[in-house]
Formats: sequence, C-alpha cells, structure tokens
Amino acid sequence: MATRTLVELIAAKRDGLRLANDEIARLVGGLSSGDLADYQMTAWLMAVFFRGLDDEETAALTDAMLHSGRTIDLSGVPGVKVDKHSTGGVGDKVSIALAPLVAACGVPVPMVSGRGLGHTGGTLDKLEAIPGFRTQIDADDFARIVRDVGCCMIGQTAEIAPADKRIYALRDVTATVECIPLIVASILSKKLAEGIDALVLDVKVGRGAFMRNEEDARALADALVRVGARAHKSIVALLTDMDAPLGRAVGNAVETREALDVLAGSGPPDVLECTLRLGAEMLVLGGRATAEEDARAQLLYAIASGAAARTAERMIEAQGGDPRVVADRQRLEVAADEVIVGAPAEGFVTRVDALGIGLAAVAMGAGRTRADQAVDHGVGILVDAKPGARVVRGTPLARLRVRRRSDAGEIVDRVRAAFAIGASPPEERPLVLGRICDANSTPARVTG
Amino acid sequence: MATRTLVELIAAKRDGLRLANDEIARLVGGLSSGDLADYQMTAWLMAVFFRGLDDEETAALTDAMLHSGRTIDLSGVPGVKVDKHSTGGVGDKVSIALAPLVAACGVPVPMVSGRGLGHTGGTLDKLEAIPGFRTQIDADDFARIVRDVGCCMIGQTAEIAPADKRIYALRDVTATVECIPLIVASILSKKLAEGIDALVLDVKVGRGAFMRNEEDARALADALVRVGARAHKSIVALLTDMDAPLGRAVGNAVETREALDVLAGSGPPDVLECTLRLGAEMLVLGGRATAEEDARAQLLYAIASGAAARTAERMIEAQGGDPRVVADRQRLEVAADEVIVGAPAEGFVTRVDALGIGLAAVAMGAGRTRADQAVDHGVGILVDAKPGARVVRGTPLARLRVRRRSDAGEIVDRVRAAFAIGASPPEERPLVLGRICDANSTPARVTG
Repeated sequence: MATRTLVELIAAKRDGLRLANDEIARLVGGLSSGDLADYQMTAWLMAVFFRGLDDEETAALTDAMLHSGRTIDLSGVPGVKVDKHSTGGVGDKVSIALAPLVAACGVPVPMVSGRGLGHTGGTLDKLEAIPGFRTQIDADDFARIVRDVGCCMIGQTAEIAPADKRIYALRDVTATVECIPLIVASILSKKLAEGIDALVLDVKVGRGAFMRNEEDARALADALVRVGARAHKSIVALLTDMDAPLGRAVGNAVETREALDVLAGSGPPDVLECTLRLGAEMLVLGGRATAEEDARAQLLYAIASGAAARTAERMIEAQGGDPRVVADRQRLEVAADEVIVGAPAEGFVTRVDALGIGLAAVAMGAGRTRADQAVDHGVGILVDAKPGARVVRGTPLARLRVRRRSDAGEIVDRVRAAFAIGASPPEERPLVLGRICDANSTPARVTG
Repeated sequence: MATRTLVELIAAKRDGLRLANDEIARLVGGLSSGDLADYQMTAWLMAVFFRGLDDEETAALTDAMLHSGRTIDLSGVPGVKVDKHSTGGVGDKVSIALAPLVAACGVPVPMVSGRGLGHTGGTLDKLEAIPGFRTQIDADDFARIVRDVGCCMIGQTAEIAPADKRIYALRDVTATVECIPLIVASILSKKLAEGIDALVLDVKVGRGAFMRNEEDARALADALVRVGARAHKSIVALLTDMDAPLGRAVGNAVETREALDVLAGSGPPDVLECTLRLGAEMLVLGGRATAEEDARAQLLYAIASGAAARTAERMIEAQGGDPRVVADRQRLEVAADEVIVGAPAEGFVTRVDALGIGLAAVAMGAGRTRADQAVDHGVGILVDAKPGARVVRGTPLARLRVRRRSDAGEIVDRVRAAFAIGASPPEERPLVLGRICDANSTPARVTG
C-alpha cells in the first residue's frame, strides 16, 4: 500500500478506519516537526472523539507521545518501582501521604504529579505549601532521591512527553478532552516516561471527578489497564467515590497538613482508608506483600512506628523543603482569618457537592482556571459536616480560611449551596466502588 | 441562558446540539478577530462533519461568511440578475458560452468564477487563454460592464467572503471538504456576495465530479435550493452527468475554442445541450421566458442571429481581451504538436473516464495540484471517441496537444487507460439526471 499522506490519515480516522502504529507515530512526529499543523491535529482529535481508537492504536499513540521527549532511566534503583496516579478530585491529598508510606515499606515510588486546574487540586501546588520544597528536579537527582530515600515527588518537566503537553493544550480548547483513548494515552505516556514498572490508578467517580458516572469511570479504568498491559506494565485501578470532597481540607496548605496528619496517625478516616487501599495495591505490585491484609498490616505499622513520617521528612529535606512540617504541621502557613459557614436549617447533611466546594476553593484563590495563574497556598476550606452529620441551624458546615474576611461574602453562599440538608441521613456510600486489573498480569518484576 | 464560550460552542456541536444564528456568527467572526484559533475552527468543522448543520444553521454560516467581506451592489443594474454555478467537472466550459448567450437574451449575468484545482478545470484559466483578457476587475467596473454589456466574468476578489476562503483552505487540509452544509455555505456565501437575484446550479455527478453518485449530488442540490430560499434567492439546480468529459476539449484554450464554437453554432452536441438547459432555467428565473420551450427558442435564435457572439465580443473587449477570438478561434494559441492516442483494440468505446482524462490534463500542465501553480493555457486533450463510438485498432481515441512530443509518453498511457472498449455499445446516459427547485419559490423579481 502506498504511504498515506497526513491528510489521508485524518480522512481515514474520520471514516472509522484504523491507523497503523507507524501512521500514528507519523501524526505525532509531524506535530513536532511542523509537517502537521495544530489545526490538522485538532481535526484528527475530533475525528478520534467520534470514531475512537482501539487498544493497539491507543498504545501506539501512547508510545509516540512517550518517545516525543526524554524518558527517565531508573534501572539503577533496585526494586519494583510503583507509582500512583489519580484522575483528580476535590480534597485528594492522598499522594503526599502515600508516597513516603509505601516507600517506608520498601517499594520505591518515583512520582511525577500535576498542578490543579479547574475545580480539581494538584499535588504540586499542595507540596509547594511546604517552605522551600522544590518540585522541579532534574532526572538524575530524581533517580538519586528515589534510590536514597525511597520516593521523590516532582512535576512533569518540559522534556517529558512534550507531544502530550502540546496535544493536551489543544484538546483543552477544542472540546476533545472527554475522550477515553486520548485520556489513556495522555496519562500513560507521562507515567511510562518516568521509568516505572507498575502503576496503581485511582479513578475518581462522581460530582467532583472528571468521570461523573461509574460506567464511564470503569470504561476508562478498563482501557488504562488494557493499554498498560500492552506496554508490559502491571496496572491496577481502583474506582473511588468523589461525590463529596475527600477528607475535610480543600486547598493547598490545609490539605498538606491533613495528608501529614495521616502519617501521624490522626488523619480523617476516609483519607486514611483511601491511602491504605491504594498503598496495599502498590505493596502487592511491588512484591512486598502477597495480599491486601498483609499489605495493610505493613502500612499501618509504618505509620505507627513513625517510619513513614521519617521517610516523608527525608524526602522533603532532599527536595529542599523544611522537614519539620511533618512533626509540626502548624508550620504550614494557613490564612489566619476564619469565616464559619453555618447550617441554614436543622437536619442531616445528605450531600456535600465536591464540584461546588472545588469551584469555591478556586474562587478563593486556592486553584486556577488557567494554567498560567498563581495560587494562594494559604487559603482553603475545611468541611466540618460530612454527609450523614446531624446539624441544627447555625452548626458550622465548613470554615473558610481567608486573607480578608471581606473576601468571603460570595464564597460563603457558594459553599453553603454545596451542602444539602434533609430530614433523614443519606445512604452510606462505599469509598471503593470497584477494582480493575489485567487478568493475565503477574506481579511486576524488577526490570532494572 | 448565559452566553456560551467559543469552546462551549465546539462542544455543543460535538454533542449534536444546534447553534443559534448569533453563535455561528461569533465563530466566524472569532476566526477573523483572532478570538477563535484555526485549530479550534478545524475541530468545529470536524464536529460539523459528524453532526451536520440544519438549514437554519447553514443559512447562518452562509450569512456570516458572506458578511465577512464586501458585497457587490448591483442595484444599479436593471433586471433580474442571474448567475450560474457549476460544482466542477472535466471539460466543463459551459459558462463561457452561457453568460453572453443568456445576456444576449436580456438577462443580466454577473458571474464570479474560480480556477482549476485537481482534476477539475476552472473558468478563469480558460478565459485567460484569450489574449489580454482580465479576470481581476473591481466591483464598480464589474457592475458597469454587467449593465452595459449584459454580462461580466471575473474571479473572486480578496474582498469577497474572506472567511470562506480561510475556512475552505482549512477544510482542504483537514479532510472536512466532503460535508454538504459546509459546501452549501461556501458556494452560497460567494454567490450571494455578488449581488445576484437568482442562481442556476449545475451539480455534476459521476467519476469526474466532486459528487460521485446521484444520491449525494441530489442531497447537495436539495440543500443548496433550501438554504438559498432562506436567503430569499430563487435557486434551480440541475444534476448533470460527469462520468465522461463534457464535449471533446479538455484544457484551457482548447476549451475556450469549443465554448465559442457553441456561439458560432458548431459546438459539440452535449456542450450545446448543457448550455441550452442551463440557459433556459436562467431565462425563466430572469423573467424573460415563461417555460423551457420558449426559452430554448430564444437561446437558439440568439446563437443563429449572432447576437450571442456579439455579446461575447463586447464582454471580451470590455475586459481587455481580443474580441476577434470569437469569430476566429484559431487566434487562441494551442500547442502545436499533436500526439495521437490510438485505440488498442476493436470495439465500442464503453466509457471515457473523466477523472482519468482530467488528471492527465493536469499532468500535462493544463491544471494544477496546488492553488499557487501556474497553468499552460495551450496544452490540452481532444477526445475523438466519445462513449458509443465504434473503433478499430489504431483509430484515434484522443489527440494530445503538447509543447514537445517527448513530453507525451506517460500521458498517452494515462489517456489510453481512461478509455474502456467493449464488444457492444454502452447504454446511453441522459445528460440531465434531475432538476431540483424550491416548491414555494416564485420567479425572482428585481430587487434593485
């Protein structure tokens, strides 16, 4: 067959035909070389939105984006390297506790995280609430810290999967974000570039998540696991609830405090449980535990013994931050003024809308609506009344931590509107809604 | 309802929702102002490819593109101004005879034509085979010539529908050309900017046409007529056969000669018939005839009396060309060397593939594969054996007019391959496959 031109590849996908691996590589390579214009890529992306990509095409797209930049070589780090990725939610500070906790149990965790955008927060912004903490660390230092400390948490560098960055920026402004094969390739290209052996995915489901319903979330998780298996990576995905914010804190410093509370044995139960469930998967994939019970016991012991906290201190120190924040969370600066959002009526809190809370936090300055905005690490929301709580008129539903009380007026209304109060308590929702893994996968082995 | 952002408009079309007229105007205006990037427009165009536009949306798109530039005011020209537009074919030189012929019968014809691209020729290239003929004429002179002569044939200026030009260029490289509402808006935006009252469309069907099958061609014609009616323009569409080239000549000067042959009463029968059928529709729309028979009689009389030829001379003179070409077609320079393509076997010509002939003409230099290429007006192909012709081995199927006989080698093979020879003659194909008009339309009235 004659080589198809790039325009013919757009037409082929438009007509529902599949593209060969090298054809997908030519599209991605063409974007870098200039042979394919942005306006051609976006037409192709919209055609993909309608026609989809099969697993082989998705794997080829992942591979092409992964190899558009540098890949990190962690072969010098002994052990099965396992990372965790969350599809994003409100109050999801789990990574900050999870990485040192799992590392303390002997599984190296090389973690590349993102920033908050829209109503979802980002781990990098939360980490940067720690005085001095650097998230821009070069690949050599990253590998060294993972080897010496057991974990390192950095931001995506410009060198990693630049094609993914460019394509994502185009998707963001062309209504082509919500497309499972494109999401899969975007997530996996970045994660595989980190040099990991296995990955645990936290696919959030609900009002505060990218995937609003369980069916879509399951389809995404399935695709991630299948395409990961093609790339010879063991992937386990948990579907977890994101209807209400996770934990109590929504913001940056307030969330980092709460994550470190978990390592001190005092975090909110839902944050702890989410951390333990994801950590257990990581320990099993990392070959340090044979089953969940065994893994949970190790994780709880690492918290109780202080080993996890010590690993967190060492990681923060290695990344230029003040390690004293682990023991003394008050060192994380939080805006001094507190405004209470009181319950408007008596009853049970039946719902706390994660989306509403997330957007209110953005409006306070804790998040951003555009990628180039700065965030205020000190402002945030503390949710006092979680679903099921019994309140009377005036009971604090939430507390806002603000720079000036005068800023709070509209935010108070928005936060109050996120709470639904009813006559009877809501049904309890499970935290973990499902678990998806590759039936054919075996526990990951060291590749280094 | 809150104003939707431009990205939300892309998402809305992606999701199959309809856009309001002002929303479509904002998309087109955004492209001009820079608020909408090319890469966003192409994503929207691909979404339109999948989701379509209804007639109101198509009319809004037409209107927005039409008003992206200057519109020509022909209100100073008395009479119902009627133009003809062909969707493009091989050997389609009809406009060159039709405009002066219809004008000679009293209907003003302001005609804006295009250039050849790919296998289809363009009227402007053919006209420019006339020594001195200018197709770039400003709007005031255009109106004056239409008033004084009855017709004027020019190229699309940069001022007319610039948004259409930009969007078409994007469609061309993003596999979004083949989309009926986008084709309709592109054709009508340019035609309505000319200041016409009514329009006759020649929608070509077959191997040499943009629309390969009658069903697609009919859908396009239907949409053109419907959307035209929304813009208060009377439109009649004829579906005509474009399986074989129209007439015998394919090229530029050779086609202009053949068109002028029609005005001299000596053109090939299919070219004459196509001219008469389209001309009759124009005379009826222009209020100069009540029915086809009446119109045909007037047209034939204008040929026989020489009135049509005299109008052609006056138009050519007004546009700077040498009017003597009308009486003496040999003044149109045609490459001197002739290479005969002989029949490879005995039998009946069952098919002459218009696409193959058109591409061979492009390869000879008569057409272009990119919009910025120059054409050689003198080279061309003369088809001697039309479908149904009885041939023996060696009978000329076609003659190539070339600059150097050594150029002809590969072209001879391509042209020969365009002819199919069989044991029995093919079924005769009708020239006009259908006629589509708006049931509610009344003959156009003068708007000026």
